[in-house]
Amino acid sequence: MLSDNRSMDSKMDETLSDFVHKSIKVNAEMQNSKKGPQNNKGSEHGKGKSGKFTLKTPKGTRDYGPVEMAVRRQVFDIIYNVFHMHGAVEIETPVFELKEVLTGKYGEDAKLIYDLEDQGGEILSLRYDLTVPFARYVAMNKISNIKRYHVARVYRRDNPAMTRGRYREFYQCDFDIAGQYDAMIPDAECVQLVHQVLLKLNLGDFIIKVNHRKILDGVFGACGVPVEKFRPICSAVDKLDKSPWEDVRKEMVDEKGLDGNVADVIGEYVKLSGKEELLEKLKNDARLKDSTDAQAGLSDLTLLYQYCKSLSCDNHLVFDMGLARGLDYYTGVIYEAVLMAGQTAKEGPVGSVAGGGRYDGLVGMFDPKKKTVPCVGVSFGIERLFAIHEQKQRADNDKLRSTQTEVFVAAACKGMIHERLKILGLLHEAGIKAESSYKNNPKILNQLQYSEDNAIPLVVLIGESEVQEGIVKLRDTATRAEVAIKREELVTVVKQRLANK
Amino acid sequence: MLSDNRSMDSKMDETLSDFVHKSIKVNAEMQNSKKGPQNNKGSEHGKGKSGKFTLKTPKGTRDYGPVEMAVRRQVFDIIYNVFHMHGAVEIETPVFELKEVLTGKYGEDAKLIYDLEDQGGEILSLRYDLTVPFARYVAMNKISNIKRYHVARVYRRDNPAMTRGRYREFYQCDFDIAGQYDAMIPDAECVQLVHQVLLKLNLGDFIIKVNHRKILDGVFGACGVPVEKFRPICSAVDKLDKSPWEDVRKEMVDEKGLDGNVADVIGEYVKLSGKEELLEKLKNDARLKDSTDAQAGLSDLTLLYQYCKSLSCDNHLVFDMGLARGLDYYTGVIYEAVLMAGQTAKEGPVGSVAGGGRYDGLVGMFDPKKKTVPCVGVSFGIERLFAIHEQKQRADNDKLRSTQTEVFVAAACKGMIHERLKILGLLHEAGIKAESSYKNNPKILNQLQYSEDNAIPLVVLIGESEVQEGIVKLRDTATRAEVAIKREELVTVVKQRLANK
Repeated sequence: MLSDNRSMDSKMDETLSDFVHKSIKVNAEMQNSKKGPQNNKGSEHGKGKSGKFTLKTPKGTRDYGPVEMAVRRQVFDIIYNVFHMHGAVEIETPVFELKEVLTGKYGEDAKLIYDLEDQGGEILSLRYDLTVPFARYVAMNKISNIKRYHVARVYRRDNPAMTRGRYREFYQCDFDIAGQYDAMIPDAECVQLVHQVLLKLNLGDFIIKVNHRKILDGVFGACGVPVEKFRPICSAVDKLDKSPWEDVRKEMVDEKGLDGNVADVIGEYVKLSGKEELLEKLKNDARLKDSTDAQAGLSDLTLLYQYCKSLSCDNHLVFDMGLARGLDYYTGVIYEAVLMAGQTAKEGPVGSVAGGGRYDGLVGMFDPKKKTVPCVGVSFGIERLFAIHEQKQRADNDKLRSTQTEVFVAAACKGMIHERLKILGLLHEAGIKAESSYKNNPKILNQLQYSEDNAIPLVVLIGESEVQEGIVKLRDTATRAEVAIKREELVTVVKQRLANK
Repeated sequence: MLSDNRSMDSKMDETLSDFVHKSIKVNAEMQNSKKGPQNNKGSEHGKGKSGKFTLKTPKGTRDYGPVEMAVRRQVFDIIYNVFHMHGAVEIETPVFELKEVLTGKYGEDAKLIYDLEDQGGEILSLRYDLTVPFARYVAMNKISNIKRYHVARVYRRDNPAMTRGRYREFYQCDFDIAGQYDAMIPDAECVQLVHQVLLKLNLGDFIIKVNHRKILDGVFGACGVPVEKFRPICSAVDKLDKSPWEDVRKEMVDEKGLDGNVADVIGEYVKLSGKEELLEKLKNDARLKDSTDAQAGLSDLTLLYQYCKSLSCDNHLVFDMGLARGLDYYTGVIYEAVLMAGQTAKEGPVGSVAGGGRYDGLVGMFDPKKKTVPCVGVSFGIERLFAIHEQKQRADNDKLRSTQTEVFVAAACKGMIHERLKILGLLHEAGIKAESSYKNNPKILNQLQYSEDNAIPLVVLIGESEVQEGIVKLRDTATRAEVAIKREELVTVVKQRLANK
């Protein structure tokens, strides 16, 4: 789906900013202590004394070091598993598109698109999101239905605010269902999927706000908003979650020329939120009962609620009439998932972590005959989920591991390199993740310290007497307890120990 | 490591070309039959009738559809597992770098670099490989040691030969060890890692050719090649695996101005290949016994052989004096893995699928004080491995799955949508991957056909009587056998069935 992570970003409250900031800081400290990256913000200007070049990453970008990548992999694994649970397929599109494919899709944001230099040949631009390439893919291949996910980085020449986790190059993580289907069944699946991902990520309580563009349009129409002002007024409503009603009203009246009385009536509606009983109440609302749009939207949401109940994913669902979503192209159900609180009591609400909706017109923009394919989808605010997950991991363990090593093979005396390699070969053969020092004669204390620093659970320790007797010592890094075991039993014992960890 | 996949590509023989070509063709056919992508080669010019734009991907790029992505994921999972076995960490760098970071690293290939348009700000280029960004990362963060992998796409404005699997945007898969360590221990680990990956991918017999730049330099020196011609002559030797000696000799003499007699002596050496006994023989060779370089290289390789024996990965190792590797920056051990045969008897050798070596000078090019960090690494020819793996998968199964769905929930009669969703919710809750139709009243034959087409192993089938009796029918897609089971036992029975699949 056309994901507006930027809109989520701009809603980022200070609490999350703090999260991200702290994470980056802790990370930098951790990595420094390992002689790892000293600066993750891409803003280091290490002008070489040779004067040859500035040693930095481009503005608004950064390297991801081992710890960040380990966190990313954990979060992706959880989300991929849910995608596979739903039978979604994966696609990948090129990082750049013909410039004309992107033209006319992003309105005034088009100025943020990265263009490639004209080096003779086609005029290309880096992708701005994953949705326009998806719509191009569906139209170009004349696909009538697909349920796909796509996780990749996108590019925006925005003003980076890197201390708040806002970059020019960032991941998007999209799940979309394209196809002509019966009402609300794919829409309910998107809600279920968001519900499942957030439960599995275990980031605390959340709600999934839901609304419908036709309900908003019905309200606007019934309140007397002229049709040409539907989208601008909708865009003002979208600001309700970060601005008080007074500011939103001011935008409607002063900037968008809406009659003050009309704005006041809209204000009564967009403050409403509830569950199914609110849907029922609005179906009989005096202003809305003759609005075809509003009634269609309300009956869609009623059906959505019923399907979500059958799917056991209705308990976090909140019908919020103030939810508008910024983008113009939504045509039906819209939704947004919000984490309710930080990981500790004093941390406030975290904000939007996923959003999406139905957009039935976009694929048609690419089809020569304007034949369209209805779509509904969700985009996860994955960079934000990374930051929160990392924060949570740090709270749960003292150490975030960037490797998966299970056994370190150490020598207690000199001349053990071949014996260490033999044991490494043996362990790898058995599928056990094992490392050893690259030095011929490493110091025993350094080897044990390395194992502790890297939270490697087991150490196999050998010396001359062990080699002669055909045994090894197996050391538990946490307890430092050592037992002698026969070499031929090593693999079995290690596997048992690891299974009990 | 600085990976020269292009050099591997150019060695691609017709047999593999056929592989890739066939794979693409079969793929396209499979996907057409599902209304999937009709053209994967990015060369479709579907000029819209609206005249608005050409519906295609940029020249030399393509979309990856569900089947290709499933193959990619399988291959990556195997390779990642081996990387983790070695305690490697993962890093990611931006897709573009400051242009000056890439300048002066690629010689005449620099003309193939994609530049971004100057939109006010920094002058940027898309990465050309993963090694220069890695060296920049190591130098910028003052890292003294790291063992990292990096899998990502790189960009080259080459003449695409897409029917032979050669694109302008393609994956590289690099594993490198940076740090000041004792001789040959990290080098042996790289050989072991290549050995493990190729065994696990199970693509048939292979050899790992090994040579040493100092041995080559020693030979050149002892034969009377002037020092300034070492690299050009080395580059000629590199062509030995696809050209006969006569052509290589011609290049040395006619193009590179080498004395014909000197070339003839070199010819005697670079045709040699063997195992350790050849190393011993050369140590006592009349011409080489006084060459410091040659002796140092020979003694390195002797040590490498010993370490590989201890690691049980010496059985595929071949000391091949004709192995030169194209790139200039190698300073020590170089190696290249070659698959010996195609998947069927009549398919010939497949060619190079991994290569690498030691490059001790590159990081120093980025350090203001020229402080360097010795590196050794390997790059897998991952696009080639994808194609071969896909070919093998097709030979093994008739159907390559692009989803992981385990259960399809089907209805035998109308009005079952809520019951289907309840069962879906139940299965997902238990971690079982399950799908159902998006239609209110799908036809039973279509549902069963979908399950067979997509190789979904089990179907849960419900009708009115099943719902009333609190049972479901569980159907095995392969045998079409059906049994009735109690609804409360569904999860347990499905899990047992899946465990036995």
